[in-house]
Amino acid sequence: MGGVASILEAGVAPVAQSGEDALVSLVRLVQSDLDACNRVIVANMDSPVALIPQLAAHIVAAGGKRLRPLLTLAAARLCGYPGETSGARHVDLAACVEFIHTATLLHDDVVDESQLRRGLASANAVFGNKASVLVGDFLFARAFQLMVQDGSLKVLAILSQAAATIAEGEVLQLVTQNDLSTTEDKYLEVIQGKTAALFAAACQVGAVVAERPVSEEMALADYGMKLGIAFQLVDDALDYVADQATLGKTIGDDFREGKITLPVLLAYSAGDEREKTFWRRTVEELDQSDTDLDRAMALMGDHDAIGLTLERARRFAQEARAALLVFPDRPIRQALGDVADYTVDRLR
Amino acid sequence: MGGVASILEAGVAPVAQSGEDALVSLVRLVQSDLDACNRVIVANMDSPVALIPQLAAHIVAAGGKRLRPLLTLAAARLCGYPGETSGARHVDLAACVEFIHTATLLHDDVVDESQLRRGLASANAVFGNKASVLVGDFLFARAFQLMVQDGSLKVLAILSQAAATIAEGEVLQLVTQNDLSTTEDKYLEVIQGKTAALFAAACQVGAVVAERPVSEEMALADYGMKLGIAFQLVDDALDYVADQATLGKTIGDDFREGKITLPVLLAYSAGDEREKTFWRRTVEELDQSDTDLDRAMALMGDHDAIGLTLERARRFAQEARAALLVFPDRPIRQALGDVADYTVDRLR
Repeated sequence: MGGVASILEAGVAPVAQSGEDALVSLVRLVQSDLDACNRVIVANMDSPVALIPQLAAHIVAAGGKRLRPLLTLAAARLCGYPGETSGARHVDLAACVEFIHTATLLHDDVVDESQLRRGLASANAVFGNKASVLVGDFLFARAFQLMVQDGSLKVLAILSQAAATIAEGEVLQLVTQNDLSTTEDKYLEVIQGKTAALFAAACQVGAVVAERPVSEEMALADYGMKLGIAFQLVDDALDYVADQATLGKTIGDDFREGKITLPVLLAYSAGDEREKTFWRRTVEELDQSDTDLDRAMALMGDHDAIGLTLERARRFAQEARAALLVFPDRPIRQALGDVADYTVDRLR
Repeated sequence: MGGVASILEAGVAPVAQSGEDALVSLVRLVQSDLDACNRVIVANMDSPVALIPQLAAHIVAAGGKRLRPLLTLAAARLCGYPGETSGARHVDLAACVEFIHTATLLHDDVVDESQLRRGLASANAVFGNKASVLVGDFLFARAFQLMVQDGSLKVLAILSQAAATIAEGEVLQLVTQNDLSTTEDKYLEVIQGKTAALFAAACQVGAVVAERPVSEEMALADYGMKLGIAFQLVDDALDYVADQATLGKTIGDDFREGKITLPVLLAYSAGDEREKTFWRRTVEELDQSDTDLDRAMALMGDHDAIGLTLERARRFAQEARAALLVFPDRPIRQALGDVADYTVDRLR
């Protein structure tokens, strides 16, 4: 266990980077909860089968921002959940949220045949696809065990629904892959499922543990959903902008897989017939040469596809912030609103 | 939905085959429950994402015996659960058990790169690995949604624990693969996890819905665990005995993967140095020629490895039957006991 704990320590805390001030502010407001959450995560990924904590530590420690559990912790605080006196349910449930997220990451990387995650070798690249699938299953089951320990059927309903919705979103993404006739609405349906549903559930659970009225639950779910959509829109833009050194993401991954994201759809629909032929060859037929990614990025530049994608993202981020107005104006509300802006502004 | 339902109808009912009389008797005793369970399964594998019910129907309809849900239904009846008057919780939970089982089958076939399941093309062979992983995740999440609807935290605890144990067993199997130094105890640990834990949970849930004392719950869990071990032992023997035509299983699959099963361990430990070299080359190093499977089977014959495996299985089946003695001697108890014998006798 010492090994796992120490691997985890190294990568665990969200680290301040330029432009991440909003996230750092939010973390500061719930720092002790987040530390407690990390301890719950480490304790619960243990198993007598040593490969499980080894593989789990690899991905859990890979330095993610803990954004989803952070949302659960912050939402609970926003709702006035006392925490310390009542057994810190929000901490355990934040760990559940991270486990569900981690399980989907492990399965995603297998499905996408990814070699890198956040700049490090992905779990499937290090431990193989088989172990990644099975440890994902383990973490998913463990998340439900933790929820059962918490004992709230309402929380179980929210998170089991989210888990089913994530899988539906992922399958829908698979179905729309390589299909340029995908509409913007269908694309939004995909990212609501695969990404935003868990953001929404993570936030809603915070209100549930605080036993707040349904209106506040719904407001937080709405905030999470909009934030999640904005987050994924920017992520999809980053695939055509960021470079590996700064974001630990390989540029052009989505392009090489023929993943249909909004920047592609916008560039395709604005393009002339010759450009459409280019997109069909590269993204539908996956017939790509070394220079095609550059050409794709140039075409996106011509049609401002990244700018337009970010504009959509900014609108969702604004809606996310607006959803919080039912809550009193306190630093935690401010910080959650700022995180919505940060989500978009990390790409500038 | 009609398509799915009709595909399912075709393959759904356990069909009498020679030697399956015990199973047929058990099915007769809970036939209407099993029919209801199949309807719950069909209704709950639906999704607006069409690929999900298509793929799910492919595997759910592939003609399995519905052994695990059958155990839940029969256990509930053995415990005097009235069913009709109280909302048929056992029917919904039997469907959960089948969903968890189906999810693990989908992931197993991806992990094992199987091309066949029960004589038909496996889901991953037809729909691809990606869809199989994701639809497995969906069915797993859906199982938990159904349990949440049922509303028993005790049932949720039993089945989420079983799900975690299955994953641990599968990972342990991965770790022991190609390792002839695996002990018989370690092998039993693998099959308790990957197979018998769900049999045990399926049976225990029957007692829980009937609100029986813990002693009856434990007796049924014990029955299921022993039955599951016997079942897997025989399954492992079948890989070196059955032929594809009669059992819809490709012979020698485990051998080709270097899966360490009891017949291999027994033949290896009884073999002389030359035989041990053969096993190390074929199963540990996976350096196999066309004639090696025949040689493996011949060596198993020389050392009665199949006979000894079945002897172990028979002992577990007897213990399974004995575990039921706390219940009154009624036809359903008799049928469950006979199923334990059938599990072993299907290989004769």
